[in-house]
Amino acid sequence: MAEPVTVDDPGDPRLRDYTGLTDVELRRRREPAEGLFIAEGEKVIRRAGQAGYAMRSMLLSEKWIDAMRDVIDASTAPVYVVTPELAERVTGYHVHRGALASMGRRPLPAARELLGRCRRVAVMEAVNDHTNIGAIFRSAAALGMDAVLLSPDCADPLYRRSVKVSMGAVFSVPYARLDSWPHGLEEVREAGFRLLALTPDERAVPLTEALPGGPARVALMLGAEGAGLSARALAAADERVRIPMAHGVDSLNVGAAAAVAFYAVSGAASPRSPGAAGAGGP
Amino acid sequence: MAEPVTVDDPGDPRLRDYTGLTDVELRRRREPAEGLFIAEGEKVIRRAGQAGYAMRSMLLSEKWIDAMRDVIDASTAPVYVVTPELAERVTGYHVHRGALASMGRRPLPAARELLGRCRRVAVMEAVNDHTNIGAIFRSAAALGMDAVLLSPDCADPLYRRSVKVSMGAVFSVPYARLDSWPHGLEEVREAGFRLLALTPDERAVPLTEALPGGPARVALMLGAEGAGLSARALAAADERVRIPMAHGVDSLNVGAAAAVAFYAVSGAASPRSPGAAGAGGP
Ligand SMILES: C[S@@+](CC[C@H](N)C(=O)[O-])C[C@H]1O[C@@H](n2cnc3c(N)ncnc32)[C@H](O)[C@@H]1O
Ligand SMILES: C[S@@+](CC[C@H](N)C(=O)[O-])C[C@H]1O[C@@H](n2cnc3c(N)ncnc32)[C@H](O)[C@@H]1O
Repeated sequence: MAEPVTVDDPGDPRLRDYTGLTDVELRRRREPAEGLFIAEGEKVIRRAGQAGYAMRSMLLSEKWIDAMRDVIDASTAPVYVVTPELAERVTGYHVHRGALASMGRRPLPAARELLGRCRRVAVMEAVNDHTNIGAIFRSAAALGMDAVLLSPDCADPLYRRSVKVSMGAVFSVPYARLDSWPHGLEEVREAGFRLLALTPDERAVPLTEALPGGPARVALMLGAEGAGLSARALAAADERVRIPMAHGVDSLNVGAAAAVAFYAVSGAASPRSPGAAGAGGP
Repeated sequence: MAEPVTVDDPGDPRLRDYTGLTDVELRRRREPAEGLFIAEGEKVIRRAGQAGYAMRSMLLSEKWIDAMRDVIDASTAPVYVVTPELAERVTGYHVHRGALASMGRRPLPAARELLGRCRRVAVMEAVNDHTNIGAIFRSAAALGMDAVLLSPDCADPLYRRSVKVSMGAVFSVPYARLDSWPHGLEEVREAGFRLLALTPDERAVPLTEALPGGPARVALMLGAEGAGLSARALAAADERVRIPMAHGVDSLNVGAAAAVAFYAVSGAASPRSPGAAGAGGP
């Protein structure tokens, strides 16, 4: 355990992990390069710890010391106590949740390694909105998806906003990045998965028809908000599937489409296998 | 039609509809009181017009005049042309989408009036997050819900962020506000609806079991992110239903839960009635 240290200089180098948190471009580069990510708020910090991530340091305001006492005591990481004003000067925003932790990243598993022990995976192509990524992880955890695979150009699930929106599900749902795209999808197919590309395109097969009884292993491919799945990714899929929509509507938000598709493959959607989401859960 | 007028004084009273757009508290009070709402970006402005809302004025940067020419020509509302810098000074933020319109509100229909012609409605209690409200409207439109009902303390679907996130679905899905809560739910039941309260509570009935064949008229009640449905609202429901979740997960985001539930009642979830979402759509 480390005794909390009061810091009152915003330029103190020990606060470097927390500088410029509102500068998305900067943080996007810095965090993976320096091997850290930021967990925000008591719940998320605890979940990161429970998932086995090592704490580099914690930054909190005085009134959070008591609530976080057990976390502080269980770690050897330094704890910096600052005023809300100083926290704002360093991070660039008003830290509503009162506590931030800088956590160490771990190497990601290889996709191949993950796939061996999975039945249902989500695959995201070029999803760059951190809110959508976080929402998809939260639904994946709740609806019993076993893992998430990311195309090389997908944004980082450990970016602060994704972590927060996911309610920490980015720690509990294992994920990997495919090295090449769409070629990396071959690896998924070779592992025995049927690749279903989710698209609003009317020519695609309705989701329920593509799941007759449900194949043993299924990979659900999701595209980004503006562009959707690329032509190359669509071509690499085994089937194009759609969630039927009302007349005149363009598309569902990718987070909503993901929730529906995860539900449909979870088994909970068919009355004959009640509670199946629970069975496959992490 | 009105000739576009260049304005270069941020204090010009003609720009008053657009002042302080980032001050949520201020705008929350002002917009309903003054009978206006703000539509942002070409797509959303067009959809508001197509839905029959009258334009009060439009604010755009020079380079948007051509793209919006037909909208300008079709309206008698004044069009103010400003530099991006002036737009930012007035609104408080950098207007990425280049065009804003101030639109006139219309009186909301009474719940009773809406219910007469609906089969599937969503009911939100105290949902105060504008992103969640917008997301729920977008899914409601896509998945063929006929209407949305709001508890008296639900936030405003016409607030700028809700409108944007909904992709304009707040214009196409009719909605009403219940005058009293939870008493107003009686009105829904009297109109022939079965009230299903969506809750992550494990003691609730799995969603599919609550929809055997599907009742003729169903109202899906959704709660807010932190608190969920109130005890009083739960007590007023006919049944509590849950989307089965993997072990150890607290809840789905309300937008994700809504998408799953809308899908499950749309008919598209059971292979025997393909494409049913289309049939009930707006
Ligand atoms: C907003 S949509 C992209 C829209 C894009 N214009 C297109 O045509 O794909 C984002 C992603 O959500 C998923 N999606 C949205 N609506 C869907 C639907 N009705 N059925 C299946 N997937 C859908 C798809 O994976 C899509 O790539
Ligand atoms: C984040 S949840 C609220 C959590 C809150 N602690 C509770 O226990 O209700 C927001 C809303 O989403 C819906 N919801 C979330 N997960 C759900 C699930 N597994 N089944 C049914 N509804 C769910 C409910 O309507 C809930 O009120």
